[in-house]
Amino acid sequence: MKEQLKIYNTLTKTKEIFNPIDKDCVGMYVCGPTVYGEPHLGHARPAIVFDVIFRYFTHLGYKTRYVRNITDVGHLENDSDDGIDKIEKKAKSEMLEPMEVAQFYTEKYHECLKKLNCLSPSIEPRATGHIIEQIEMIEKIIKNEFAYVKNGSVYMDVKKYSETYNYGVLSGRKIEDNIDGTRELESQSEKKHAADFALWKKASNRHIMKWNSPWGVGFPGWHIECSAMSKKYLGENFDIHGGGLDLVFPHHEAEICQSYAADLCPPANYWIHNNMITIDGQKMGKSLGNFINLNEFFNGSHTKLDKSYHPMVIRFLILQAHYRGTIDFSNDALVSCEKGLGKLLKSYENIEKINCEKKGFVIDDLEKIKNNCYSALNDDFNTPIVIANLFELSKIINTSINEKTTMTFSQKELVKKIFDVFLFELLGIKKMVKNINNDLSKELMKLVIDLRDNSKKNKDWETADIIRDKLSEINIQIKDTREGTNWSLNE
Amino acid sequence: MKEQLKIYNTLTKTKEIFNPIDKDCVGMYVCGPTVYGEPHLGHARPAIVFDVIFRYFTHLGYKTRYVRNITDVGHLENDSDDGIDKIEKKAKSEMLEPMEVAQFYTEKYHECLKKLNCLSPSIEPRATGHIIEQIEMIEKIIKNEFAYVKNGSVYMDVKKYSETYNYGVLSGRKIEDNIDGTRELESQSEKKHAADFALWKKASNRHIMKWNSPWGVGFPGWHIECSAMSKKYLGENFDIHGGGLDLVFPHHEAEICQSYAADLCPPANYWIHNNMITIDGQKMGKSLGNFINLNEFFNGSHTKLDKSYHPMVIRFLILQAHYRGTIDFSNDALVSCEKGLGKLLKSYENIEKINCEKKGFVIDDLEKIKNNCYSALNDDFNTPIVIANLFELSKIINTSINEKTTMTFSQKELVKKIFDVFLFELLGIKKMVKNINNDLSKELMKLVIDLRDNSKKNKDWETADIIRDKLSEINIQIKDTREGTNWSLNE
Repeated sequence: MKEQLKIYNTLTKTKEIFNPIDKDCVGMYVCGPTVYGEPHLGHARPAIVFDVIFRYFTHLGYKTRYVRNITDVGHLENDSDDGIDKIEKKAKSEMLEPMEVAQFYTEKYHECLKKLNCLSPSIEPRATGHIIEQIEMIEKIIKNEFAYVKNGSVYMDVKKYSETYNYGVLSGRKIEDNIDGTRELESQSEKKHAADFALWKKASNRHIMKWNSPWGVGFPGWHIECSAMSKKYLGENFDIHGGGLDLVFPHHEAEICQSYAADLCPPANYWIHNNMITIDGQKMGKSLGNFINLNEFFNGSHTKLDKSYHPMVIRFLILQAHYRGTIDFSNDALVSCEKGLGKLLKSYENIEKINCEKKGFVIDDLEKIKNNCYSALNDDFNTPIVIANLFELSKIINTSINEKTTMTFSQKELVKKIFDVFLFELLGIKKMVKNINNDLSKELMKLVIDLRDNSKKNKDWETADIIRDKLSEINIQIKDTREGTNWSLNE
Repeated sequence: MKEQLKIYNTLTKTKEIFNPIDKDCVGMYVCGPTVYGEPHLGHARPAIVFDVIFRYFTHLGYKTRYVRNITDVGHLENDSDDGIDKIEKKAKSEMLEPMEVAQFYTEKYHECLKKLNCLSPSIEPRATGHIIEQIEMIEKIIKNEFAYVKNGSVYMDVKKYSETYNYGVLSGRKIEDNIDGTRELESQSEKKHAADFALWKKASNRHIMKWNSPWGVGFPGWHIECSAMSKKYLGENFDIHGGGLDLVFPHHEAEICQSYAADLCPPANYWIHNNMITIDGQKMGKSLGNFINLNEFFNGSHTKLDKSYHPMVIRFLILQAHYRGTIDFSNDALVSCEKGLGKLLKSYENIEKINCEKKGFVIDDLEKIKNNCYSALNDDFNTPIVIANLFELSKIINTSINEKTTMTFSQKELVKKIFDVFLFELLGIKKMVKNINNDLSKELMKLVIDLRDNSKKNKDWETADIIRDKLSEINIQIKDTREGTNWSLNE
C-alpha cells in the first residue's frame, strides 16, 4: 500500500522519490496571498492543492509543519522593484492605515479558505512581522558580497552570484534575458545589472510603511520575506517550497539566489508549483470582465455566473484536474462538477442501504480501488485519478443496491472507509450539510411519512397523494418500496 | 438624543465627558490575549465589553480605529520579569515551535469571538511582529535616561522616573510598595530598585524566541509591546486604552511610564477597565476545578455545567451587568439569562403580529424607551439599563398582542427599530438562527399543520391529536386560535 511517494520537482523537471530531510517530519513553505483585495480563484487553487498535500503528509504519519505567509508589505505593483506597494495603494484609496487593509483582506481570505475546507497552516507568518529577520538575512548577503548598497537601497548582485551559483536553475532564465527597456526607472539606474533585484528599498516620503535599517529608512523587497520566514520556521534547508506557477520567476528564482547567497545552501529540496486557472478559456483579468472572486462564486452574484456554487463544488472542480494542469472554469464545468459531487455524496449516503450477508462478491474490486487511490496520490498527488476511482466505487454501491447484490459486513465497512479517507479526509470534501440534514427537518419528515403511511393503511388514497404532491412542491421526492417509504431532497 | 457621552476614567476615578482628540475619530487600544491556552471567560468579557463600545462609537458616527493585540512573546509566568515565557513553555511541552502554539490558540480565540458575535478589530498586531518598534522605543527611553542596561537586559528606572513623573497615577501604587521578598531572582539582583521592570531581557540559552538587539540577543519585556504597538497604530497620545481590571497593575501602569519616558506624553486620555468574573461565587482557577473555557460553555461538556449554553446567552449575561461590576456565572444565572433573552427574541418575532391602525396609544413610552437606551449608553456604556428598557418594550409588544391594542404603523416601525439598533446592532446579539428558522422545516410545518387542519375539517379528531402529540414529542407546541394554528419550538 505505501509505495514511495513521487513528487514532480520543478527544480529538476522530473518526478522524484520524496526523501524528507528528517524521516519523520516534513517542512513545507507555500507562498500565501498579498492581502489587498478580494480572494479569488488564484488564491483558492494553491490553498486547496497544498491543503491536500498537507493532509496527505499528515495521513502518511509525517509530523508536518506547513508554513504559509501573508504578504502585507513589499509587494509592489507589477511585481517590480519600483512603483507603489499594493497594500499602501489600497490604504490610500480607502483612507485607511495599511494594516487595516491587511487585516480586512487577511480575514476575507481566511473566511473563504474556511468555506473551502482548507485546514489552517501550522504557522502563518506576516512579512511586516519579520523585518528584523529580513534585515539580518540581507546583512549576511552583503557580508558574503552578493549584494551592494546604493542610495539607501540594497540590491542582489545577480551577475556576481551567477559566477558562483547556477542562476536560473528553477526558471531556466538566463541573466541576459533580463535586459529590458525599463532603464529609465529609478531602481534600474541604481542597479549594476538589469537582472539585479531589490533586497531593501529606501523609502520615499510618500511611503507609509517603513522601518529603520542599517541602510536608512526603508522597506524590504518582496522576495526576501519568504526567504527569511521559511528559514526562521523551517531551517535554512527544508523539504518543500510551493506556490503558483506564476511565482517561479522572479519570486522563487530570487528566493533561491537569496538562500545560496546568505547561507550557501538551497532553500527547498523540492519545488512544487500549481498551474493556473482560466475562465471560459480566457486568463482572468479585471479588464476582461471575467474576474470572479470567490464570494461571487459562492453567492452567484457575478454576471458571468448562471447560479451560485457551493464552495465544495469549487474545491471539487479544482481537484478534478491534476495540480500541474490548467483548469478552465465555466458554468458548464461547474454544473457538471456539481452533479458529479452530488452523485458521490449520494452514494455515500446509500452505503447504509447495502445488504450485508456472510458472503460478498466484490472483494477484489474494493481492494483494487483503495490501492489505486493510494497509488494515484503517491504519483505526484494525482487527485483526478482518486476521484475517478471514487466514481468506480460509487458504481459498485449503486449496483449493489439496485441489483440487491450483497457484501460482507467488512466489505461494506471498507467501502465506507475508502470514502471517509479519500473523499473526506484527504480531498477534504465536507460531508455537505444539506438543508435536509437539519435534525428538525428529519423529525418532521418522519412524522409526515408516518401520516401518509397511516392514510394508506386507512385506504385514504387522496390524502396520501396530497402529501406526496405537497412534498414534491417543496422539492422532496418520496418513493414507496417494499421496505417502506424513502425520501430525498432534489438537487 | 445625543447627549454627551460620559466615560469612567480609571486615571481620574471619575466619569468624564468624552472629548476625542480628533472630533470625528476615535482611537482605542485594548489588550488582547496571550495565546497559549483555550479561550475562557476572562477573554470573553473584555472582548464583548469593548466590542459594544466599538459598536457604539461607530453608531455615533465616529471613524473608529480599534486596535487589539495578540501577545505571542514576552509574557512570562506570573506576569513577572523572570521565569518561562508562557508560549514557549506550552511549545516545549507539546514539542512545537512557539509560533505553532500562537497560531493554534489565536485561531481558537478568533473562533470563539466570532461565535460571541464580536466584530474584528481594525488592526490586530502581534508582539513578535513589532520587535523593531519595541527596540526603538526602548532606545528612546534609554536616551531620555529613564532606563539602564544591565548584563544585556534593559530595565525601566522607576525611581528616576518617579522624580519627574507621577508613578502610580493609574493604580495608586507607590514605589515603596514594590519591595518584596523576591530579591534572590536573577533580575531582582540586576535591578536598581524593586519597582523597576524589564523592557528587554537577555535571552538565556534555553530561550527559543529571541532577537538581536543593541543590547545583545534577547526578547522584549511584556509591557513594552503594547506601548510600541499603540503608538504605531494610534499615535503617541490617543483616546482610549482598555483592558481587564487585573491589567491596571503592573501592565498598564508600566505602559504609562514607558510612554512618558519615551515620548514625554501620556499614552491614552481615557483608561477603561472591565471588572472580573467569578464562577459560583469563586475566582476562576484551574486548581479550583471551576475553570470552564468558552467551548465548554458552548457544548456543555464541563462537569460544573448542567447543560450547554448558546454563545449569545454568554454574551447577554455579560452585558446584563455593567462592565465595571463583577459578574458571577452559575447555572442558575445562565438559565435565567437564557430565558430572558428568549423572551426578548420572542417579542421581536411578535412585532409583526401587532395590529396597526391610524391611531395608536403608546407613543410616549416608545420615545422614552429609546431615549433611555441612549442615555444609558451615554452614561458610561450602561448596558444593563439598555436591557431593562428592552424588557419594558417587550411588555408593550406583548400587551399590544394579548389585549389587542393597536399602534400606528410608524409606532410599530419604531418598536422594531429600537430592537434592531439596541439589541442587535449595539449589544451585538445575533438574531438567533434557531433550528426552526430552517426554510425546509418551515415548509414542512406548514404541510403538517395543513394536514391537521384537514383532519379537523373531516372531524378526524384522532389524527389531529396524534399530530399534536407527535409534534410535542419533537418539542413543537401548537396552539389553536381563531386565526388558525400557531406553533413554536420550545426552548
